[in-house]
Amino acid sequence: MRRFVLIGQTASASGDFSLADLASSSGRLDVLLRCVRAALLVSNGLRRDVRVYLVLRGGEQAPRTLRIDGQSAKFLRPDERSLAVLVQKTLVDCQLSGLGREFREVRPGIAACAGDLERVLAELGDGPRYVLDEAGRDVREQALAGNDATFFIGDQLGFDQATLTRLDALGCAPVSLGPVSLHSEDAIAVLSNELDRRRGG
Amino acid sequence: MRRFVLIGQTASASGDFSLADLASSSGRLDVLLRCVRAALLVSNGLRRDVRVYLVLRGGEQAPRTLRIDGQSAKFLRPDERSLAVLVQKTLVDCQLSGLGREFREVRPGIAACAGDLERVLAELGDGPRYVLDEAGRDVREQALAGNDATFFIGDQLGFDQATLTRLDALGCAPVSLGPVSLHSEDAIAVLSNELDRRRGG
Repeated sequence: MRRFVLIGQTASASGDFSLADLASSSGRLDVLLRCVRAALLVSNGLRRDVRVYLVLRGGEQAPRTLRIDGQSAKFLRPDERSLAVLVQKTLVDCQLSGLGREFREVRPGIAACAGDLERVLAELGDGPRYVLDEAGRDVREQALAGNDATFFIGDQLGFDQATLTRLDALGCAPVSLGPVSLHSEDAIAVLSNELDRRRGG
Repeated sequence: MRRFVLIGQTASASGDFSLADLASSSGRLDVLLRCVRAALLVSNGLRRDVRVYLVLRGGEQAPRTLRIDGQSAKFLRPDERSLAVLVQKTLVDCQLSGLGREFREVRPGIAACAGDLERVLAELGDGPRYVLDEAGRDVREQALAGNDATFFIGDQLGFDQATLTRLDALGCAPVSLGPVSLHSEDAIAVLSNELDRRRGG
């Protein structure tokens, strides 16, 4: 399974943002929503072999982490507002029913937990890990470990130093994607294309 | 200059759509807005050497075509709603002030005309042209004509037959992007990455 872990340094961990003013009221959750689309949706539907983690570090309810699973997710639509509504409902449900440290499915294919990156790492266990890093080695020159790998991706701010240090200590291989610094969602599109080509579709 | 021509078979040519229900009220203009982001916006701002044409074929005001120029565009933000507001205001301005067959700048870096693909072709003149086509030759195996080229891209419906016939008659080279059928905006991200690599940034 292909896994993307997106670190939202300011992205709202609660549902109290405005859909009419998503970018500024949600701590730029919009960036992560676009990443969800790029990671999971293709022309003919969902990528069943992809799982996305959203680490939400913004606001009083933080940290919380959502896990969206292409195998079982439903009602994922590509437009930003639909994805925002889905995440907002999920976060409100979390608020009402409470969250523990373990991932619990809140909606079809969407699980949540009260926790940060360490909860994700505990669930992932061992396995090949990569971090998107413009100073890393070009993805086209890397062997890559088949489709069964985890990719850590920053938001519009990149990564904070503590996260970088942690990912480095884990031995994540730095991967770059070319000469231009891309939005996170475009980075996912480019990376997914390389992985698709390696696997042959 | 890199040019992307996006054909919106149903995308609204007037501003009378609802921002709260963009995808269903605008004839899927949301697809084209995501393409605008992917084509023009990168981490550190705008791609100055990119121009995007949106051919809007939906609704009673159709056809209209917008031209967004990375060299002079302002106020382009990555979130879908902000882009929708900008396009909506532009289309309302067109309505108020009237549109002719020639492109006229309506807002900074955004021009419009009352016309379809033929107006775009008249403006483009000669030069290398490509059409995104899953049956085409892989982009990585194509020589490509430097950065000064035009790429025609379909929407969520692909291309209608008349447009395909016209592009074929123009001698557009079909280009494919890999083994998975992608959303138009992801196709632009992948294609832009290949062009960036050829040019070296």
